[in-house]
Order: sequence, then structure tokens, then C-alpha cells
Amino acid sequence: MSLTAAPPQTFRAIDVIRKKRDAVELSSAEIEGLVNAYTAGEIPDYQVSAWLMAVVLRGMTRPETAALTDAMLHSGEVLDLSFLPARKVDKHSTGGVGDKTSLVLAPLAAAAGVAVPMISGRGLGHTGGTLDKLEAIPGFNVNLSVADFRRVLATCGCAMIGQTAEIAPADRKLYALRDVTGTVESPYLICASIMSKKLAEGIDALVLDVKTGSGAFMKSEKDAAFLAELMVETGERMGKQVVALITDMDQPLGKMIGNALEVVEVVEILRGEGPDDLRELCLELAGWMLHLGGVSKTVAEGKQQSAKLISSGHALARFRQMIELQGGDARVIDDSKFLPQAQHTMLVASAKSGYLASMQCEQIGTACVILGGGRERKEDSVDPAVGIVLHKKVGDKVSAGEPLATIYYNAEPLGQRARQLIEASCQIEDAPPAKRPLIHKVIGEAVTMSGEKN
Amino acid sequence: MSLTAAPPQTFRAIDVIRKKRDAVELSSAEIEGLVNAYTAGEIPDYQVSAWLMAVVLRGMTRPETAALTDAMLHSGEVLDLSFLPARKVDKHSTGGVGDKTSLVLAPLAAAAGVAVPMISGRGLGHTGGTLDKLEAIPGFNVNLSVADFRRVLATCGCAMIGQTAEIAPADRKLYALRDVTGTVESPYLICASIMSKKLAEGIDALVLDVKTGSGAFMKSEKDAAFLAELMVETGERMGKQVVALITDMDQPLGKMIGNALEVVEVVEILRGEGPDDLRELCLELAGWMLHLGGVSKTVAEGKQQSAKLISSGHALARFRQMIELQGGDARVIDDSKFLPQAQHTMLVASAKSGYLASMQCEQIGTACVILGGGRERKEDSVDPAVGIVLHKKVGDKVSAGEPLATIYYNAEPLGQRARQLIEASCQIEDAPPAKRPLIHKVIGEAVTMSGEKN
Repeated sequence: MSLTAAPPQTFRAIDVIRKKRDAVELSSAEIEGLVNAYTAGEIPDYQVSAWLMAVVLRGMTRPETAALTDAMLHSGEVLDLSFLPARKVDKHSTGGVGDKTSLVLAPLAAAAGVAVPMISGRGLGHTGGTLDKLEAIPGFNVNLSVADFRRVLATCGCAMIGQTAEIAPADRKLYALRDVTGTVESPYLICASIMSKKLAEGIDALVLDVKTGSGAFMKSEKDAAFLAELMVETGERMGKQVVALITDMDQPLGKMIGNALEVVEVVEILRGEGPDDLRELCLELAGWMLHLGGVSKTVAEGKQQSAKLISSGHALARFRQMIELQGGDARVIDDSKFLPQAQHTMLVASAKSGYLASMQCEQIGTACVILGGGRERKEDSVDPAVGIVLHKKVGDKVSAGEPLATIYYNAEPLGQRARQLIEASCQIEDAPPAKRPLIHKVIGEAVTMSGEKN
Repeated sequence: MSLTAAPPQTFRAIDVIRKKRDAVELSSAEIEGLVNAYTAGEIPDYQVSAWLMAVVLRGMTRPETAALTDAMLHSGEVLDLSFLPARKVDKHSTGGVGDKTSLVLAPLAAAAGVAVPMISGRGLGHTGGTLDKLEAIPGFNVNLSVADFRRVLATCGCAMIGQTAEIAPADRKLYALRDVTGTVESPYLICASIMSKKLAEGIDALVLDVKTGSGAFMKSEKDAAFLAELMVETGERMGKQVVALITDMDQPLGKMIGNALEVVEVVEILRGEGPDDLRELCLELAGWMLHLGGVSKTVAEGKQQSAKLISSGHALARFRQMIELQGGDARVIDDSKFLPQAQHTMLVASAKSGYLASMQCEQIGTACVILGGGRERKEDSVDPAVGIVLHKKVGDKVSAGEPLATIYYNAEPLGQRARQLIEASCQIEDAPPAKRPLIHKVIGEAVTMSGEKN
């Protein structure tokens, strides 16, 4: 109802809210208008939160999701890395427990000749964050200026930093609002948040690691696959090569959980040691990165090259170089005593004999948060020294009294609470459990391109 | 996930938002907590708007709706009118075009011995508002203090005022937020808004006039009946007698639209004159008010009593008394020249001969708003003099060139725009249209009580 002859308003938030509420598809212009006006502070939080809730409950079409991603991406600076001759490829994980693959993959892919401009996040809730892990290395600076980021990248082929104020400011503002209005849990909003930040890195291709299982945000494989398809399609609509691997997070990845401990395990992997599941996943993801980065004809070839770069020591050398370039104490690679050390350790013993049938993975992550190794609120600080080392993985045989895990802690009551949680989360059965695959599914055009399927 | 041993928080808005988002029924304590915290300014608009959108899209159960109504009702003062021996009965309409029944019913029911403590609203959008109509009477004060409201009520049995700051402040705050966040259109929120204000009046019973048709907010009879049942059940859960009449708003009620013009038509009805549809609806609603007010055994008897109070002049005398007690110029009853007068009039003539088959009723209301007689935004002021007088009602025979309506206006371009809109909204057909009933349905326990059905 237009009653007056007033000039047409450029953008009316209320109309966009009502349309989404009534499940009417929004145009790119409407979505862009909303994102731009919100980022500029021209429309209030209370209108945007109502719109976000309507998106959570009504969903979005693929064109709407792409338009939202594009608007958020262009709300800030989009890095121009064209000065680098190599193809730029990043990897992003939806978050898990013990997932330290980024720290392995950046130097590994860089050693193979792929440029990896990686902008990561911090841990929140039961999951860890790449920045917290990097900061366990004394002196490591994740807050590089864009100029320094480019310099490190040009020198060693990879650089790892936190989100800057210039990159996708709309995402930062929207995420803060979503966090307090119950509107985090929408695949469309999650997709736009991840993809806008990643595409702002100026990459050519992206490998997504979408977790599923008891330690993932997407517990069911169906939900994980839905999000993965959404992200792949959104990336492709924006002219990028994107592949998504649905991978297992029904138990922690590897054996070490906690920031300094995870750096130890990263070094183990880069030395050709470390737990099988972590190595296998790193090689798989690296294979895809090398393939999309144009340095291997197939994913399988990329995996082989990656394995060689580990056994030759080139990947570890690249990790050392990156640490040094970002101000960190690279002696942590040679001796873990240069990493923060917890004051105490405590064993968690199995109450009975049998097989470790399952671990409630989110609870293991929560146990690490309780120790101080993660954060419940964004403002919380993190204790890099604490954590958990698993001695058994799902499927392993275990005797009564045998240690399931070692807890690294600094405060006795927190150690005790973590122990109780770990005990409760480990299920011992008489028979071995059915084996879950590590890689559940691969989604994306690259699958067809390379002629491979997992 | 509770990680720390912090004392339990009394109320977490985010939990209530998430529950409603996930279609989990909220407890009364949760709803009360949200309403109280919001009214006290303890939780921000952006959380409440997300919750409101979740309510719009997920709906509410009957207990939730009653809990919301109760919390809003008790967010402020609940009038205690027990000093009045008579039963307290009010009437509320969901809003329409030309609906001036409140001005007839308050003095009419009061003349019959029912106390009518009426707190009304202003017009918004295409519908008029009782307060605007009352203020067309020079000097009439709708902003009485509660003490003066009680005094007028005690003296003449009825009083008509606007919402005070003390009554249901939660509703005022929530409505302002709903208005700008696309969350007005929810029967649950509409129900709680209406019922909380009405029950705060300290009434024993309530007659609801729920409009349906092209001039109503609820265009379909199904939607109108749903809202009516919700309000009746909510009122009953709170120990009040409530009945709802679904009545027709497919064309304007009566023949006059516009604030001063509607006062003229109110006087006509109270003189035993005026248009049939308006008189019939007033008598029907008055019959229910008298019946629920305990002064008539049946609704039919209440209607007869009401008709007698009109023909005897008692109802008009009571209207005069109320106007005087509220500071108005009661000479408007004797001569309409004491009401604000528009400077110009213009006829809208029929382009062809036939029957007036339908009127797009919302457009007629909008034509009045364009003239200045209503408001698009709450801040707008209203011109009491302008309006429309209909010469034909739906079903009437009309010849080419015969006037359909007279427009009362103060600005030529606005008059012309109103004329175009009225012309476009009147459909002339060769055959007479099927007759729509004035009263579509009656909903409420009182139907059974009185043994009557409409």
C-alpha cells in the first residue's frame, strides 16, 4: 500500500523480512541491499535477527544462498593474490575434536608448489580452532597485516592468520548476531559464512572437510551431505573449484586433543609418524589440494606426492619456515619441551575388559574445554598446555585397568571433572564395533574431473 | 552444555528462542521470564524479534498463548473496578472500514445497566480507530487518568479512553517491535495483544467482533474463525466469559467513513435512524453485551431492550452525558455543524447501470487514509473532517451517472486520488450479487449458555 507520492525508497528491510517470512524468493538486489545496509549500520539488529530467524525456518534457494555469500564476500576486501604464479588452494573444516589437519596441510601443499593462503578461526564450544593451536607455539603471530600475509605467502607458499577487519565484515557482524539469537543452525547461513570468508582469500579452489558423527556440528551424514552440496554448488556458482569430503568425526581425529599436544601430533605426522587415521585424512585432503592446485594429474597422484614430501622432510621444513616467518619458536619441532607444559597428568583407566565400542566425541571435546583448553564463550582465554592423549581408538581391544587416556591438567578439580566425562563417554563392549569409514563421501565436480571416487 | 560451576541463571533468552525455533512447547515460566525481562529492558530487541519470528512461523499451543497473554496482562496495572456493582463488559473489534459500533455500544449498554470500561486504539493502515472518531468531537479527552476514568465510569456507566502507560506495557513494547520486524501477522501474537489489554480493564466478560472479508485484516472466514476461537479459549482459560462474532467486512459498515462523519452516523443510529447493516450489528453486539452483563436472560431479549433504549432516547442521553463528562462539545449531537467540516465535496458517479456487485473494502479505507482521515504511520496526524459517504451499498441497483459516493476533502489532488480509488473499487454487474450474511458465525461458550445460535 503506497499512499503518498514519496520517492521510492532504495531499500526497505521490512519488505525483505516479510517476503522471507512468507517463503517468497528474494532477489539478489534485495539480499545485497540487506547485507550492505546492515554492514553500514543503516538497519538495526532487531530487523536482521527477525530476518535471520525467518531464513532458519524457511530456508533459502540456491540462488539466494549464492547471493548472500556474494554480498558478504564483497562487504569487505577480496584479496588479490594474482602476483603468485601458483594456483591458490585452501582447505576448510566444519570443526571437530582433535582436528589439526590444517597445520599439516598448509606446509605440505605449499611444499608441493600449491599456494595456501589460509585464514582460520578460533575454537568455540567443544571444537578446537586452528588459531589456538598455532598460538600454542611461543611467539607465533596469527595477526599479520595483509602486507605481511602476502610476504610470508610469497616466501614459503603458505601463511596462516586469523580473520582481519577488512575481510568479510558482514560475516563478523552477522555471526555475532546469530550467536545470540539462536540463528546459527542453518545450513544456508553456515554456507554463506564459510564461503564468503574463504572466497575473500582470493583462492582458485577449495577443499571442504565436512565432519559428521557425534563430535561434529552436523551429527547425521544426511545433514553433513546437505551442507556439503550447498557449499560446493555455491562455490561453483561463484566460479571456483570446490570439492567436499564428508569425513568421520564419531571419535576424535588422531590421539591428541589440546592445543600444544596437537602441535606435537602435527610434527609427528610431518615426520611420517603419528596415528593412522590422522595421516590417512591428511594425505587424502592433501591429494585433493594438489590435484585442484594443478600439481598432480589425479588425487591418487597427489596423495603419493604428499607422502613423498613427508618422507623427504620437505613438508616439515616448510612448516619450520612458516613458523619462523610468523615469529614462532621453531625449536618446538625438535623438542616438545619448548611448547607449554601442563603441571600434572592423570590416567583414565578402563573399568572393564573388551573392545572400545564408541566414544561420545562431543563429550571428549567438552572435557578438553573443561580443562581450560577451549572456550565456551568467545571472550574466554585458552590454556594451551592442557589436553587429552588417547591411548585407545574405537575398535581397539582393552583390558580392565588399562589406560584409555592421559589427562594433562593444571587444576585438580577440572582434571577430575574431565576424567569423569571421558569415562562416561567411552563405551566398552564384548564384541568389536562395526568399522566406520574415515571418508564417507566425496561431493563436487572435481570428482568427475579426476575420474576418481572415494 | 554447562561447563562451569556458575550459579544457574534465572533466565536465558537464547534457550527460549532456540526452543521455539525447534517447535518445543515453552513453559509458562519461560514465557513469563521472556516478557518480564523484555519489559524491564533486561534483554535486547534483537533477541525478542528473533523469538517473535519463530512464533510467527512455528505457532503456539493454547497453553503458550494463554501464558503469553497472562504475562503481558500482568506486565502492568490491572484495573480493579469491583467498586462498581454492575458487571463489567467490553466489546472489541479487530478493525474495519466504517466500524463505529463502539461509540454506539458503550452508551447503549451503559443505559441498560452494564458497566463498559472501554480502552481503545487509533486507526492504522486502512482501518479507522475509535480514539480518532471520539477526538473528532471538539474537546473530547481520551487521555483520562485512571482516577478520572473510574469517576466517569461510576457516573454514567461507560467511559472511553486510550491505552495508558500503566496498562500492559509489555504489549506496547512488543507491538512497536512487531510493527518493524514483520511479526504482526500471527494469530497467537494478535490474540495475546488484544486479550492482555482487554483483560487489564478489569472486565467480567468480553464480546469480540472479528471481521472477515476484503476490508478486514483476516480476509478469509477460516482465518477469522481461527483467531476468534483462540481469543475465546484464551479468555476462558483466564476465567472470563468471552464470545466472538465473525461479522462481515466485505464492504464498509454503514454509509459513512471518516472520523467526524462517523460521529454523525453514530448519532443517527442512537436516534433510531441510520443504515440497516450498522443498526443490525449494533443491536446484535449490544444483545450479547447485555446478556453477558446479566441484564437480559437471552441475547434476543438483550436486543429488544437495546432497541427500546434507542427509541426511548435513553441511549442517546447516555452518549451526551459521556461526551460532557469527558470534556467534549455535546452540541455535536444536535447539530453536525459543531463537528469539523471539510471544505469541499465531490461526487463519484457510476460509469454504467446495473447492480453494485462488490466493493474492494480495503481500497475504500485506503481512499479515506489518502484524504487524510487515517494514518499510514503511527506518527501521522489525522484530519477529522474528511471522509466518504456511500450512497449505494452492495446489492443496490444503480443507473449510469448516479452517484455512488460523496467525497469530503480539503485538498483537490487527494480528492481526485480518492475518487479514482473508489471508482476502481466498485464493481457494477448486470445481475445482483449473492447476499453475504452480516453475522457469519458465533463462537464461544456463551452460545451454549443462552441456548441461542446465530
